[in-house]
Amino acid sequence: MSKPLLILGAGGHASVLVDILRQQNREIVGLVSPESELKNKMFNGIEHFGSDDDVLKFDNKVINLVNGIGSLPGNNLRVKLYNKFKALGYEFETVVASNAIVSDYARFEEGVQIFTGVIVQTNVRIGRNTIINTGAIIEHDCNIGANNHIAPGVTLSGQVQSQENVHFGTGATVIQSVSIGENVVIGAGSSVTKNVEENTICFPARITKKVLKKNEP
Amino acid sequence: MSKPLLILGAGGHASVLVDILRQQNREIVGLVSPESELKNKMFNGIEHFGSDDDVLKFDNKVINLVNGIGSLPGNNLRVKLYNKFKALGYEFETVVASNAIVSDYARFEEGVQIFTGVIVQTNVRIGRNTIINTGAIIEHDCNIGANNHIAPGVTLSGQVQSQENVHFGTGATVIQSVSIGENVVIGAGSSVTKNVEENTICFPARITKKVLKKNEP
Amino acid sequence: MSKPLLILGAGGHASVLVDILRQQNREIVGLVSPESELKNKMFNGIEHFGSDDDVLKFDNKVINLVNGIGSLPGNNLRVKLYNKFKALGYEFETVVASNAIVSDYARFEEGVQIFTGVIVQTNVRIGRNTIINTGAIIEHDCNIGANNHIAPGVTLSGQVQSQENVHFGTGATVIQSVSIGENVVIGAGSSVTKNVEENTICFPARITKKVLKKNEP
Repeated sequence: MSKPLLILGAGGHASVLVDILRQQNREIVGLVSPESELKNKMFNGIEHFGSDDDVLKFDNKVINLVNGIGSLPGNNLRVKLYNKFKALGYEFETVVASNAIVSDYARFEEGVQIFTGVIVQTNVRIGRNTIINTGAIIEHDCNIGANNHIAPGVTLSGQVQSQENVHFGTGATVIQSVSIGENVVIGAGSSVTKNVEENTICFPARITKKVLKKNEP
Repeated sequence: MSKPLLILGAGGHASVLVDILRQQNREIVGLVSPESELKNKMFNGIEHFGSDDDVLKFDNKVINLVNGIGSLPGNNLRVKLYNKFKALGYEFETVVASNAIVSDYARFEEGVQIFTGVIVQTNVRIGRNTIINTGAIIEHDCNIGANNHIAPGVTLSGQVQSQENVHFGTGATVIQSVSIGENVVIGAGSSVTKNVEENTICFPARITKKVLKKNEP
Repeated sequence: MSKPLLILGAGGHASVLVDILRQQNREIVGLVSPESELKNKMFNGIEHFGSDDDVLKFDNKVINLVNGIGSLPGNNLRVKLYNKFKALGYEFETVVASNAIVSDYARFEEGVQIFTGVIVQTNVRIGRNTIINTGAIIEHDCNIGANNHIAPGVTLSGQVQSQENVHFGTGATVIQSVSIGENVVIGAGSSVTKNVEENTICFPARITKKVLKKNEP
């Protein structure tokens, strides 16, 4: 049976999760966020807890946590909270949007989040606490590490591998059979055609800007 | 109750709209286009009116208009027709394809068109007469201005803002929290990571071409 | 009535086809592959034939073939097998994933494969033995030649035309009304805004890589 859920965070990432979970009629017992007040109207009706310590009021056998902290390069709060509450015996819910298209032959580890309109093909493995964000495409036989963030609109071709803590920026594409080392940042819009070593950032050529004259273009 | 619809235009954009509206069993009372004859077979069975003045034969309380004029940089016919018929008291139908994925927490102004396979997340606002074209992704908290065209395959990350009359070209991507000024053209395939000032065009680095030798690649 | 299917190939492309066909409860009478053993667990329960000659044991009036060979630039096995077995009187099944979104006004020639989450708009024509891979978007009035491979995440705007044997790499985008000659390779992530002559390869500007320092970015 599905457990009630307690959500860590109250920003944009959490709001999409709440939207997905409401469509699945899941019970949300609260949002945990240091903000003095929840400004987002879609959180109306959900109880607000102001401190991480409030989590401890909930029995880890009764509720599951949802990691509502978003993931951006250079901010590891999401990973810290995951590790902290795992050490305290809590389980993180794996969330799969009802309208994502997921192969029966894909495997997700604990706390994976598969967002709206995502496509996951056969034989894919996704590591713990990884986000597959809106509309991303994960092709057959991809093996994605823990604590990755695959941003909206990313396309990974077949047999792409990534180690832990990789960020694939918005709309990035990776061709088949490429391996990505740990702690890599793939900049938004990058097209990756070769392996990327650990602790590397890559980004596409800059766009060019030009002032438009009257009646242009 | 749904009103009968009169469509302005008879090109490719109008053809996709007709396809979407037929799937919703909407009544289409005619297509308005100066072409002497409608060549597209999928318009068979729909009455053809040759002049904008023919619109005035229809009572603006009885029918709604659908803006079937496409949008490309440098061509503002779509906007002109919208403003002209609004001034004459007509209402423009907001069209949302049945297979688009739209959050209950998104808001669309008059005449917005959400095409096939589009994803719109929570707390998004889309301004009047804007097209979200096939398969585009609009992330949480985006605030899109009036008379924008978001072309097929575009991805906008969370909290992107645009002013009026912005064109996002095919497959362009914009990272989170970027602001785009009015009258901006984002070229196809651009990856935008910083704010863009008004009256600007941006485009990606050119692709390189090479003649393939026999048995290459 | 649907015929039983015999699949040529047992790699990643074949695995996605098996997944799609199982969702449609299609009968799969075997996989033909020179591998000594099928390693992919999702092929469990499907009979394995080791040689192309085994195909001849099946009556071409009773079964249809499915071309499970993937397509990459420089490898024309997929096309060779198609031509060989057509000459022997076999028919290739046209496969359309149940969750693809396909206009009633699109036409597919023999052996076309439309994968998971693909969108095909009105008045599109797709030539024989062409793959439209996962999540690709094919806009209104596109006319795609035979033996093309449109890789995952590609976006083709309206009225794009391609001749035979064109490869559109992962995540490539093409703007409206562009024509692509035969034997062209559009590199992954390319954004094509002008016609491309036959026997040409195009690729985007290289990405830049930089080693991340501690606590970067």
